[in-house]
Amino acid sequence: MSQGQKTGISRRGLLGATAGGAALAGALGGGRLALTGGAVGAATLAGTSVARAAEAAAVAPGQLDEYYGFWSSGQTGEMRILGIPSMRELMRVPVFNICSATGWGITNESKKILTEGLTEKTKQYLAANGLEFPRNGDLHHVHMSFTEGKYDGRFLFMNDKANTRVARVRCDVMKPDKIIEIPNAKGIHGLRPQKWPRTNYVFANGEDEVPIVNDGQVLDDPSQYVNFYTAINADDMTIAWQVMVTGNLDNTDADYDGKYAFSTSYNSEMGMNLADMTAADMDHVVVFNIAEIEKGIEAGDFQELNGVKVIDGRKGSEKNYVRYIPIPNNPHGCNMAPDRVHLCIGGKLSPTVSVIDVRKLDAVFYEGAEPRSAVVAEPELGLGPLHTCFDGQGNAYTTLFLDSQVVKWNLDKAVAGEDPILSKTDVHYQPGHNSTAEGETLDAAAKYYISMNKFSKDRFLNVGPLKPENEQLFVIDGDNLVLAHDGPTFAEPHDSILVHASKVNPLSVWNRQDPMWAEARKQAEADGVDLDDWQDTVIRDGNKVRVYMSSQAPQFALESFTVTQGDEVTVIVTNLDDIDDLTHGFTMGNHGVAMEVGPQATASVTFTAAQPGVYWYYCQWFCHALHMEMRGRMFVEPKGA
Amino acid sequence: MSQGQKTGISRRGLLGATAGGAALAGALGGGRLALTGGAVGAATLAGTSVARAAEAAAVAPGQLDEYYGFWSSGQTGEMRILGIPSMRELMRVPVFNICSATGWGITNESKKILTEGLTEKTKQYLAANGLEFPRNGDLHHVHMSFTEGKYDGRFLFMNDKANTRVARVRCDVMKPDKIIEIPNAKGIHGLRPQKWPRTNYVFANGEDEVPIVNDGQVLDDPSQYVNFYTAINADDMTIAWQVMVTGNLDNTDADYDGKYAFSTSYNSEMGMNLADMTAADMDHVVVFNIAEIEKGIEAGDFQELNGVKVIDGRKGSEKNYVRYIPIPNNPHGCNMAPDRVHLCIGGKLSPTVSVIDVRKLDAVFYEGAEPRSAVVAEPELGLGPLHTCFDGQGNAYTTLFLDSQVVKWNLDKAVAGEDPILSKTDVHYQPGHNSTAEGETLDAAAKYYISMNKFSKDRFLNVGPLKPENEQLFVIDGDNLVLAHDGPTFAEPHDSILVHASKVNPLSVWNRQDPMWAEARKQAEADGVDLDDWQDTVIRDGNKVRVYMSSQAPQFALESFTVTQGDEVTVIVTNLDDIDDLTHGFTMGNHGVAMEVGPQATASVTFTAAQPGVYWYYCQWFCHALHMEMRGRMFVEPKGA
Repeated sequence: MSQGQKTGISRRGLLGATAGGAALAGALGGGRLALTGGAVGAATLAGTSVARAAEAAAVAPGQLDEYYGFWSSGQTGEMRILGIPSMRELMRVPVFNICSATGWGITNESKKILTEGLTEKTKQYLAANGLEFPRNGDLHHVHMSFTEGKYDGRFLFMNDKANTRVARVRCDVMKPDKIIEIPNAKGIHGLRPQKWPRTNYVFANGEDEVPIVNDGQVLDDPSQYVNFYTAINADDMTIAWQVMVTGNLDNTDADYDGKYAFSTSYNSEMGMNLADMTAADMDHVVVFNIAEIEKGIEAGDFQELNGVKVIDGRKGSEKNYVRYIPIPNNPHGCNMAPDRVHLCIGGKLSPTVSVIDVRKLDAVFYEGAEPRSAVVAEPELGLGPLHTCFDGQGNAYTTLFLDSQVVKWNLDKAVAGEDPILSKTDVHYQPGHNSTAEGETLDAAAKYYISMNKFSKDRFLNVGPLKPENEQLFVIDGDNLVLAHDGPTFAEPHDSILVHASKVNPLSVWNRQDPMWAEARKQAEADGVDLDDWQDTVIRDGNKVRVYMSSQAPQFALESFTVTQGDEVTVIVTNLDDIDDLTHGFTMGNHGVAMEVGPQATASVTFTAAQPGVYWYYCQWFCHALHMEMRGRMFVEPKGA
Repeated sequence: MSQGQKTGISRRGLLGATAGGAALAGALGGGRLALTGGAVGAATLAGTSVARAAEAAAVAPGQLDEYYGFWSSGQTGEMRILGIPSMRELMRVPVFNICSATGWGITNESKKILTEGLTEKTKQYLAANGLEFPRNGDLHHVHMSFTEGKYDGRFLFMNDKANTRVARVRCDVMKPDKIIEIPNAKGIHGLRPQKWPRTNYVFANGEDEVPIVNDGQVLDDPSQYVNFYTAINADDMTIAWQVMVTGNLDNTDADYDGKYAFSTSYNSEMGMNLADMTAADMDHVVVFNIAEIEKGIEAGDFQELNGVKVIDGRKGSEKNYVRYIPIPNNPHGCNMAPDRVHLCIGGKLSPTVSVIDVRKLDAVFYEGAEPRSAVVAEPELGLGPLHTCFDGQGNAYTTLFLDSQVVKWNLDKAVAGEDPILSKTDVHYQPGHNSTAEGETLDAAAKYYISMNKFSKDRFLNVGPLKPENEQLFVIDGDNLVLAHDGPTFAEPHDSILVHASKVNPLSVWNRQDPMWAEARKQAEADGVDLDDWQDTVIRDGNKVRVYMSSQAPQFALESFTVTQGDEVTVIVTNLDDIDDLTHGFTMGNHGVAMEVGPQATASVTFTAAQPGVYWYYCQWFCHALHMEMRGRMFVEPKGA
C-alpha cells in the first residue's frame, strides 16, 4: 500500500503560524469572511460625485467603449475581451480550453497549435492515454506586447499554470497562433513582456519546485529542488534561456530601461507544506540582470537541460546574473510604476508594500551594495496587500485581500517617509489583482480602476453553491474612488489590462492567405482544389476522404456526400462570404464535430465515420433567414457494401 | 472516388425561389445586411420616457436583479444564468460542453451523467474513437418545469441539436443531473415542457429527416424518411413515447389545458436541398393529441424501435393522434399565449403570423372540421416573422428577422380583423428569439422585453472577424418599447426565459448526502473511509490507487502521496468548508486534470500517472490569503522501482 504524507499539524495551528496568519485566523479561520472593512472613502462621498462617476462610466446602447479590457479567466483557460467602462464581455477567446462553439480543440488548425509546442515527454504521455493535448488550462495573466514602454497592439501573451504553457494571441484576428510548453519548469505562473526597448522577451515564472532533472530519480528530497525563470523569444515563441533560482517564483515584471526583470518568491524557504512555506519572516524578490544573463549564455556559462540553455542563479551561484532582495513576508504582487523608477512588492502576510528604486540596483549588482539598500520605502498599508497599479499621477492603488479594500497611496510621500495613504475604499469582496487604464505602461491614466474580487457572496442573485466572482469598476478621475459597476464573472479572472481602443485594430474579414490554414491550402493544392473558388469536391484516398465544400449563406456547396463506415473523413469548409460578422459554422450531427468558419476563412476537421446511416450536417452559426435550411447529408455506407 | 451531390443551381436562383426568398434576395443576397428598418417606435420617443426606462432597468452596484434569466448558448453547449434587468451574466452552467474550470467532462461524477444516457450505438462509436462522450453540443432552448401553467423552480430542460440529446438541470444546485440521447430522432431542436397540469412530459422535436431504421440500408431515398416527436418523462428522464410524422419539426409548445402540443414544420415537402425545402407555399403545424396518443400506446397501436414505443402519425395514418394544419411558409416560431387560447406561428418566409384558437381543435379532431378552421387570424406583420412573446396584457411581440425590428401587436384586434400593429421598433440586428418576463406562463408581465439578435456588426468595439451577438433589453411598461441595454454575448443564445427571483431558491452549500457523488460514497464505504470526516487515506488496489483527501482552506489533508508510473489514480476530494462561496478546486499539474469542489461537496477524478517525477497539485479556486500555498506533491515512481 502506497502511503500519503499527512499534514501532521492542525489547520488552526497553521493559520496561527505567522503574524499574517494570525490576522487570517481572525478574518477567515473563524468560519466567516470579513464582509465589512473600515471604509474611509466611498461611504462618505456626496451624492453628486457618485452621480458624476456613474455618468463617466456609462455607455449607452450603441455607444462604443473607450478601452479594451483583456482578461484572464484562470481555470476556465480562455482569454476574455471586455469593453471598459461598460464591463460588458465582448468576446471569449479559447486558448487552453476546449470550445464547442469555435471548435477550438476540435479543428485541425487548432489541434496543430495545441499540440506542436508540447514537449516530447508530454506528447508521449498524452498519446498513451488517448489524448492529443491537455483538456484544461489555468490562464492567470494576459499582457500585451510593448514598444518603448507602451502597448503596441501586436500580440497578447498568457500563461497556463496547470500544464506549464505559454500562449500568444494575434491581435489582428484575436486567435492564438502559438502555444508552447516550457521545459524544466513546473507551474508557469507570473508572466510579463519586456517593456523596453520592445518586447523581445516574455518572462515567465516557474512556481512549483522540482528536481533539476525531474525524471523520478529524485522525489521527496526538496534539498535538490530548484525553480526556473524562463525568457521566451516573443517573435518566434522559442525558449531563449532559463535561470535556475532558489525559492519559488510567483509574480514578475520588467523595468522601463530594458535592464532588469523581477520576481517575487513566497517560498524562499523551499518548504513543502504550509507551515514551512510561511516559516520565515523574510522571503525575497529575485532581480534578473538581462544583459549579464545574455553575456553568460554567449560565454557558454550554462548547462543544457531538455534543449534549453540554463544559467545557474541559485543562492551562492548568483555571479552578476541575479540578486536576492529580502522582502517580508510571502510577497506576491510585483508591479513596476510608470514613473520608471519604483517597483512595488505586495507583502501579502506582511501589511507592507516594499518599494524598490530600480536606479539603485546597479550598485547592488556592481558595487557590493546591500540588496535591501534598493528598498526606499515600506509603508504599512493594511492587511493582505497583494497587487498594486498606478494612475500616472504618482499614485498607487493596492488591493488589501483581508481588509476587502483598496488603498490609494502616494509614492513620493512613501519614499519621503510621510504617511502616504490617501484613502481606503471597500470592495466586495477579497480582491486579488487590480488594474487601471494602461497602468502598467507609460500611458497610465487616472480614469478607471478595476478591482478583481475573489468572492461575490451576497452581491448577486443566488445561483447555487458555485458563485460568480465580482469585478468592480471605480471611476478615479477625482480624489476618491467611486464605485460605478459590479461585474459578475465566471471563474476566475486573475489579471486584466485596459488598452485604449485606438491601439487595437483587428480585421473584420479574414485574409484568404492567413497562415492559420496553410496546411489545408497545401493539401488542397495537392488535390487540385482551388481554396479561393467555389469548392464541391470529394477526394477519396484509401480510407481517407477529403470533402471540400464552400459555404455561402444560406448553403453549403454540397447537399450530400457518401463515405464508408470507419473512413477517416476530413471536411474542409471555406466561407466565401465577405461580409462583416457573417460567420458560418459546420456541425456534423452525432460525430462530436463542430467548428466556426469566419468570413473568408477556411477551417477543417477530421473524424471517423460512424455506423452506417444518414447523418445531417448543418451551419450552426446563425447566418441568414434560411439558416435552418443550410444543411446537408452524409451517407455512411456499410463496410464492404 | 466517392462523389458528393452538388447543389446544382445557383445560389441567387435559390433565393428567388419563393416569395419570401425574393425579399431575402433584396435584404441579404446583395451582399449587405439590412441595417436600418423603418422605425415606428423608438426613434420618435421623447427623452423623458428613455430616461424613465433607463431608471427602470438600472441595477445599482449591490442591488439584486428582479428576474433570473435562463439562457441557451447554442453551439457553446452551456446554460447561462443572467440577472434581469441588469443583463449581467451571473453563471455559466456546463451541460453539453467540456469545462476546464468546473471539470465538467473531466470528473467521474460529470462523466457518469454525460455517458450513462447515451445509446449503445453511440457508446460503441465513441469508444472506437477513444472518446467517452461528444465534445460539443448545440443547446438551443432552456425551459423550466411548470405546475399549473407557472414556473415551479424545480428543473430546467434543454436540447442538444448536434448530438440529439436532452438534459435536465437541478435548480437547487444549478448542475445537470440527467443527459439522455433520444433514439430514432436526429437533431433535437424545439423543446418545451408540458404546462398543464404539470410538467409530466418534456416535448422534443426531431429536426432532421432520417430513415425509420437508420442503419445504412436506406440512404439517399427521402421517400423513406420520417421525423420523430418525442415525449420524455420529466420525472425520471426516460422516453415515454414517440410519434412518427411527415415533414420535419422545428419549434414546439404546449397548451394550458394539458390536451395538445404543437410543432412547426419548415420542410413539409421533405426536400433535401434549399430549393425543395422552400418549394411549397404552405407548410404546416402538427397538433399532437396527448390523451389519444396515450390511449394508442395503452392499446398497443405502436411499433417498438430501439426500445421506444412509436406511434405512426404520418399523413394518411393520423387517426386521432395528430392533425396537420397548413401554414404559410416555412413556419418557425411556435408560442402559446398566456390568454390560454391563442397559439402564434411565425411565418418566416411569409410576412404573417398565423393565430390558432386552441378551443377549435376539438372540432378538427372529432368533428371533421377543416384544419385551417382553427386559424382565426393571420395578420401581415413585416418581413421574416420568427418568434412571438407576450406581456399578459393581450399584446404580442414578434421578431422580424429581415426588417431587424420587433412588432408589437394586439391579439384581440388581430382576431377581430382590425389592424393589430401597435408599434415597430428597431433592434440591432436580425433578431431570432425573444422573451418577456414569464411570458410563456400565466404570470406573464409587461416589464422587460429581450431581443436576441444574431448580428452585432458595428454595435461594439471590433474584436476581430468573430463578433459577439447582441441581446437588447427594452422596458415595456408603457406604450412603447424603450431600449435600455445592449448585451453583447458569446455564441450563440437562441432562447431565454425570465423567472421571477422569488421562484428560484438554490442552496448555497451542498447537502453532504447529495446523489451527485453517491458512487464515490459507496467506494469510500468499501474502503473504510468516512467521506464526512477528515480524510487523508491512500488505498492501493493492484495498479489502482485511490487517494482520499479533505480540503479546508488553506490546505489539503495530504501534502504528498506516491504512485507508480501508469497507475490508474483516483483522487477524491471532499471540501469540509461550509461557508457560502468557499469553493475549492483540485488541479493536478501536467495531467490535464482540474475540478471544482464546492462547499461540503465531494468530487473525484481518475487519471493515469505520467512519467516518473514530482508533480504538484493545487487548489485552483481562490479560497484564502494563503491560497497559493494550498498545494502538494504527487511522486511518480518508475515502474518496477
